[in-house]
Amino acid sequence: MAAQTPEPVGFGTRLTDLARPLRLFSLTPPREATPQEDLSRIAEVTIERLRPLGLDALVLYDIEDESDRNPDVRPFPFVRTLDPGAFHADYLSGWGGSVIIYRSVGKYEPADLKTWLGEQDPQRVATVLVGASSSSAPVRTRLAEAQSLWQDTGSLLSLGSVAIPERHARHTNEHDRMLRKQEAGTSFFVTQVVYDLTWAKDLVSDYAYACRGRGVEPAHLVFTLSVCGSLKTLEFLQWLGVHVPRWLQNQLQHAPDPLSESYEQCAAAAAELATFCRRLDVPFGFNVESVSNRRVEIEASVRLAGAIRDLLES
Amino acid sequence: MAAQTPEPVGFGTRLTDLARPLRLFSLTPPREATPQEDLSRIAEVTIERLRPLGLDALVLYDIEDESDRNPDVRPFPFVRTLDPGAFHADYLSGWGGSVIIYRSVGKYEPADLKTWLGEQDPQRVATVLVGASSSSAPVRTRLAEAQSLWQDTGSLLSLGSVAIPERHARHTNEHDRMLRKQEAGTSFFVTQVVYDLTWAKDLVSDYAYACRGRGVEPAHLVFTLSVCGSLKTLEFLQWLGVHVPRWLQNQLQHAPDPLSESYEQCAAAAAELATFCRRLDVPFGFNVESVSNRRVEIEASVRLAGAIRDLLES
Repeated sequence: MAAQTPEPVGFGTRLTDLARPLRLFSLTPPREATPQEDLSRIAEVTIERLRPLGLDALVLYDIEDESDRNPDVRPFPFVRTLDPGAFHADYLSGWGGSVIIYRSVGKYEPADLKTWLGEQDPQRVATVLVGASSSSAPVRTRLAEAQSLWQDTGSLLSLGSVAIPERHARHTNEHDRMLRKQEAGTSFFVTQVVYDLTWAKDLVSDYAYACRGRGVEPAHLVFTLSVCGSLKTLEFLQWLGVHVPRWLQNQLQHAPDPLSESYEQCAAAAAELATFCRRLDVPFGFNVESVSNRRVEIEASVRLAGAIRDLLES
Repeated sequence: MAAQTPEPVGFGTRLTDLARPLRLFSLTPPREATPQEDLSRIAEVTIERLRPLGLDALVLYDIEDESDRNPDVRPFPFVRTLDPGAFHADYLSGWGGSVIIYRSVGKYEPADLKTWLGEQDPQRVATVLVGASSSSAPVRTRLAEAQSLWQDTGSLLSLGSVAIPERHARHTNEHDRMLRKQEAGTSFFVTQVVYDLTWAKDLVSDYAYACRGRGVEPAHLVFTLSVCGSLKTLEFLQWLGVHVPRWLQNQLQHAPDPLSESYEQCAAAAAELATFCRRLDVPFGFNVESVSNRRVEIEASVRLAGAIRDLLES
């Protein structure tokens, strides 16, 4: 199928254009127990649904339980999902465009991670290396070690890292962490889901001025946005560590239709963050995901990604 | 001069129209050491400057040192100012419109406060009773006692109270405090200076839903906005307990012209809060003040009040 469409521009090339906002869409791979014949169909339907969005890359998450990070009961039960690299290799050949494969590095032996990094086609695959979700989690590979392994493989894949406005609100040093990650090779950042615009702007601002102060070119900062169609999803977002301001919690709790309410909030957030980043000359982008697998929420996510495309192209 | 203009509508009458946003402007009375001949001139200039704004009331602050509340050095030195009631009685007869006289109740003996409350003309004067700035401050009259004294004088003056989004962010019960103040007779609220819109919206939202839950009609919530023309003023706002988000601190610190930067932020805040309150059916208003007495900041405050008038009438 890739042969029918013009050869897509590699993600690394996209990153060199700082004036052009990135547009990503994230998927959690199907659950491990999914029958093989369903996997092909899921992949096909997904590709057809996402193709009109003209994305710069498809993001594939590497799901961890994360229950070690939060003592509260996980609102949605943890379900083991396919390895994102395997799902890509085995089922997403029809996608044709770039993919960004997350790696929760603590899950892997260093040798396995290095092998995987070395085997990927840098024209097609970028990676986001993610450290452990808590400092007490048992890990096979630490983030700094994973970054070294990436360097050992020639630093060929575009390397992304996570940036967390909530951590910045607590410790006010996330911009320093970002600069250290950039020194280690990171060329783009993806946030966790953003519902608190003030906190997101605080991070953008501190990062922008820190870059200026040190004479460093800021890297793309991609904000993850996710609709929230039910109170259960809201609870799950908060369980994941997303800070939802009180007024917005109230609004979603009292809305006759929380899905369209959250959709409007996400669209408004994209517009406000775009204006803010442009003003500060921070290259940016948006990543749309659905944290739940309810059909209406996935469909609203696709609509949101389309609205963001229109916003950025207008 | 009042005879030349139509008899103004009393502030109490304004409060009964929940659909109409209030517009206030605040003054700190001149310093005690001001020569008497200058006081008349200051009053005259002020009245001429404010008359075109069509305000619902002029607010006169009752300044306290507040150094007991904050161990940090006060960025602007504390200067004793005229009693707001005396300044009004002796110099502001030309104003003609309503005034809202603040009373920091801890400064007064109960008997003096009661006498003052009983002597005011409810057609011209409303009051905001303010409790001590810290729980450790020595007080002559506590807020609850002052509210009783107001009731003893027949509850004739329109009674206002302060509402503090920053306190809500810390303790998440400011809406409960507001409802208790309403039970004690409060018919409008004035915030301290607002620079954090999320925190202001959090308070509006919790207050709105608490009112609905208890079947109480919400009272006007008047947001105080103040321009900030220098880093010294920014420092003073923060000393006063105003939360300025990091991004906005950065923006003011790096702006070639912090005054016009803060002016834009205040105007945008007014628009956003008006939309938000209308959506939640909370009656609202704006109070513009200048926390510094620099001429350019006072002039920008008057311009801001004019812009807010235009916004609310459009």
